[in-house]
Amino acid sequence: MAFLATLYILECDDGSRKLKMKIGVAQINSTVGDLEGNLQIASSAYAKLVSEGSELVIFPELALCGYPPRDLLLKKSFGDDCSLSLESFARETGPFPALIGFPEKRTSDEGRPFHNSVALCRQGKIQQVFRKRLLPTYDVFDEDRYFAPGRLPMCFTHLGKKIGVTICEDLWFRGGLHGEDPLDEICRERPDLLVNLSASPWHLGKMKTRLALLRSVASRTQAQLAYVNLVGGNDELIFDGSSIFLNQQGLVVQKLVSFAETTLVFDLDEDSSLKTIVETDDYESVHKALMLGLGDYARKSGFKKAIIGLSGGIDSAVTATLAVQALGKENVIGISLPSAISSEHSKDDALALARNLGIEFHTLPIEKIVNSADSLLAPLFQGLPPDVTEENVQARARGLLLMALSNKFGALLLTTGNKSELAVGYCTLYGDMCGGLAVLSDLPKSQVFALAKHLNRSSEVIPQNTILKPPSAELRPNQMDSDSLPDYDLLDAILHEYVENGASIRELIGSGFEESTVRRIVELVDRNEYKRKQAAPGLKITPLAFGIGRRMPIVQKYSN
Amino acid sequence: MAFLATLYILECDDGSRKLKMKIGVAQINSTVGDLEGNLQIASSAYAKLVSEGSELVIFPELALCGYPPRDLLLKKSFGDDCSLSLESFARETGPFPALIGFPEKRTSDEGRPFHNSVALCRQGKIQQVFRKRLLPTYDVFDEDRYFAPGRLPMCFTHLGKKIGVTICEDLWFRGGLHGEDPLDEICRERPDLLVNLSASPWHLGKMKTRLALLRSVASRTQAQLAYVNLVGGNDELIFDGSSIFLNQQGLVVQKLVSFAETTLVFDLDEDSSLKTIVETDDYESVHKALMLGLGDYARKSGFKKAIIGLSGGIDSAVTATLAVQALGKENVIGISLPSAISSEHSKDDALALARNLGIEFHTLPIEKIVNSADSLLAPLFQGLPPDVTEENVQARARGLLLMALSNKFGALLLTTGNKSELAVGYCTLYGDMCGGLAVLSDLPKSQVFALAKHLNRSSEVIPQNTILKPPSAELRPNQMDSDSLPDYDLLDAILHEYVENGASIRELIGSGFEESTVRRIVELVDRNEYKRKQAAPGLKITPLAFGIGRRMPIVQKYSN
Repeated sequence: MAFLATLYILECDDGSRKLKMKIGVAQINSTVGDLEGNLQIASSAYAKLVSEGSELVIFPELALCGYPPRDLLLKKSFGDDCSLSLESFARETGPFPALIGFPEKRTSDEGRPFHNSVALCRQGKIQQVFRKRLLPTYDVFDEDRYFAPGRLPMCFTHLGKKIGVTICEDLWFRGGLHGEDPLDEICRERPDLLVNLSASPWHLGKMKTRLALLRSVASRTQAQLAYVNLVGGNDELIFDGSSIFLNQQGLVVQKLVSFAETTLVFDLDEDSSLKTIVETDDYESVHKALMLGLGDYARKSGFKKAIIGLSGGIDSAVTATLAVQALGKENVIGISLPSAISSEHSKDDALALARNLGIEFHTLPIEKIVNSADSLLAPLFQGLPPDVTEENVQARARGLLLMALSNKFGALLLTTGNKSELAVGYCTLYGDMCGGLAVLSDLPKSQVFALAKHLNRSSEVIPQNTILKPPSAELRPNQMDSDSLPDYDLLDAILHEYVENGASIRELIGSGFEESTVRRIVELVDRNEYKRKQAAPGLKITPLAFGIGRRMPIVQKYSN
Repeated sequence: MAFLATLYILECDDGSRKLKMKIGVAQINSTVGDLEGNLQIASSAYAKLVSEGSELVIFPELALCGYPPRDLLLKKSFGDDCSLSLESFARETGPFPALIGFPEKRTSDEGRPFHNSVALCRQGKIQQVFRKRLLPTYDVFDEDRYFAPGRLPMCFTHLGKKIGVTICEDLWFRGGLHGEDPLDEICRERPDLLVNLSASPWHLGKMKTRLALLRSVASRTQAQLAYVNLVGGNDELIFDGSSIFLNQQGLVVQKLVSFAETTLVFDLDEDSSLKTIVETDDYESVHKALMLGLGDYARKSGFKKAIIGLSGGIDSAVTATLAVQALGKENVIGISLPSAISSEHSKDDALALARNLGIEFHTLPIEKIVNSADSLLAPLFQGLPPDVTEENVQARARGLLLMALSNKFGALLLTTGNKSELAVGYCTLYGDMCGGLAVLSDLPKSQVFALAKHLNRSSEVIPQNTILKPPSAELRPNQMDSDSLPDYDLLDAILHEYVENGASIRELIGSGFEESTVRRIVELVDRNEYKRKQAAPGLKITPLAFGIGRRMPIVQKYSN
């Protein structure tokens, strides 16, 4: 249909080139490894977008296999099955082309098994392939493990216009992290439109970083820019979508919704100087991100129901509220597991929360189990003072009961610990750490409070007392978190510097934190690596989460 | 001391060059991150080897920081502290140089933060630096995450001889996995001696692969070859040492002991055609590897004692035997945790094992805890048939008690599951999976039997009945593993192909396995990824272990 092209070439008054082309954006939610399901989603999205007038349809990076496929790429049949899936997709395409991400099996038996590629599909065929050049290996990424960098041309012509194709990291030269900058070649090619297919996980602050980068890319290449990002939760990672168009001046002219699957037809000829306001990240983003991550983890792994131990504290209250919003109140079960030590307000607050949420609620007092265990252990423990052992027995009795309910009812147990606790090991392995998904494990305690207030912004869902009372694990009489830990604002400030920024003890002390506090916190973080090794996967919402993006040795003796 | 060189140049009758130089090999056991401790070990080894006549001392790769340092490399102070450590080491050196591995902080703020380097230290100074060129990112390796590839010259001259320096992967071009083969440059340089500093983890069959490679390297470069490998356990990885010398013809002329820290002075002038027999891997290697891995995990993390639940079955018997050999019988506590279902022979076999081993032994019947839990849950479970829930409650009651003992006595709980169980999820999360280290988690069940027989080779340590009786989890009356799983030989054969070789269902059926069995096993392996996510670190002894070398998505829908 190249004859259409001449009709569409326009010149603007200001001399800058203006494109007339309708771009269809398929911001889809792929499931990792679900080749059949993803193919159906992609084919439907293509058909819909073309029927709505799209002349070019763009999907995210690796849309056909989901991101990140990780070691599925090392399975012998995966490459061929992905190729078949791509061919099926291509057969659905008509005169208007689609750009779709797929893992391209390399023909050579040598080296990495794949390229991270994009196929240009049109008229039933794969017409051209583009290969990712910059392969990230920082944070959660392992692309050099699977992919060889591309060397193919980066442009194609459609409707008389030159279109450059890049894949995610290709735009992120990051000041020399990679040996070459693909944008140098893009600039030489002078494309009219630059497309980027991404699978870019979200974290707080990502939108700002991403926008700054995209603006500079658009300005530098003097091309309109279409950034198409994956949406959905896959294990720890939450992809926000937030696909976006920028004009040659780097102004945002359109943005798709964040944290939801959607499609959009965008006419590049529309006033390309229109400024679209892009909201900055805040607790509403955190809220949406966690709902999406939780909902997708359950849905994609086949769980309809979730179960949560309700302590009356803020972490379990926030987790339960998110679960209700993601899965529906009829699919969430709250369990109160009081001990002899539990305060009345804990039981009351748990009940009040369950009533506010309208969820199924049961109470299982753990006293008998704890007493059985204690009396069984008494002869062996004779003469030894009570210590953390007895506290852990309580937490593990709760874990045992919650897992029994999870097993019997086929409900996903959600673990409720926050990032601060997980950092310093203020949690019991096989106790309150039990669960299939850690919803808040990347949210520092001080931010859990902020999120709780946000969830309560229109009406009180989380009981006010839960938010106001001082945090306590209630594992010994009158225990308070503040007995063992500094104030959470101080703790979180130290943890942010130590865990996320890699600051040394020297630097922490130098920046004004009290030395003994710093040394105590650092020692706790280091010593508890073994707990995190066995933690449930947690939803990543900061630049550095515990999990696949933080790879610390467990047994190690560096402390600085 | 270059004037010595001329004295040492010899020509052999056959015209091939022969070196006269005494090489000191420091096959040391570094601890990850223990900069001070590793420095002491290295300095002592250097002094000893020089006092014994060494004219060049060679250490393993990254000897000063231990391998793998992983994300310690992303801590802001780590690079500088490693530099200080290297300078301290260099100050200890005299006229005879040392080659030692260290992470070299890059001066540029851009790109990867380090090179994986080797320093040539002499006369108190760092005289030259060599940088690793090939950076592995397969299996357990993540080197592209931290290191930029080197471009420096690879040779230096000492005592009139040219010596080429390579670091581990530099010799493993692997048919195009990497873009360049450093041996091309080495060949052009025509060194007299080629040195390789390695941190090469052991697995069954590694010695054969490694020897074949080293032989081809020696022949191709026509240089004598000194291969110096790290020894010791660091988390999941077990380094075997097994440092080795080959002559120009690729014949092994000397080999250091495997699985033990040692030093050796080797005179390159000694009959370099002497053939040294290198033992091939067998169960004695597995035995030594697991003892080293277990012992180092405990020692390096500060545990003196270990605790093990003894079921009377073979996995716990083998684990306990290894623990006694690694830690001493006075440091191992065996606990029998019988239920109402447990057979008499289980209790007898556990007791017999403990007597054979001479370890502390206690019996804690779990019935009361299980009954407390069951009666507490009964109202909620009303009308629902017993299922795996009740079995898991028993396993979790055991986990709770073992962890209480671990907490109270400060003893490392060893988990006893084998690779076959972990693969198909025939184990209870937070139950028998509790523990700080999984000793056998990379050993398929059929090989656990073989190892048990090996451990019994001189006298019966593991009761014969434990080896002969059919395996049972004893979580319901008359339960046998064979009720749920195929025969272990068949299961292990399928698992080997599916898990380790990445075979597809099609391929498995094509190679003769029965379709319904294949589909059932594959489904179990895939479905139980969530359990492995939360498993204890396990000692790697096969080419592909569950753990950091296998990175599967948890929620994913590919099944082929």
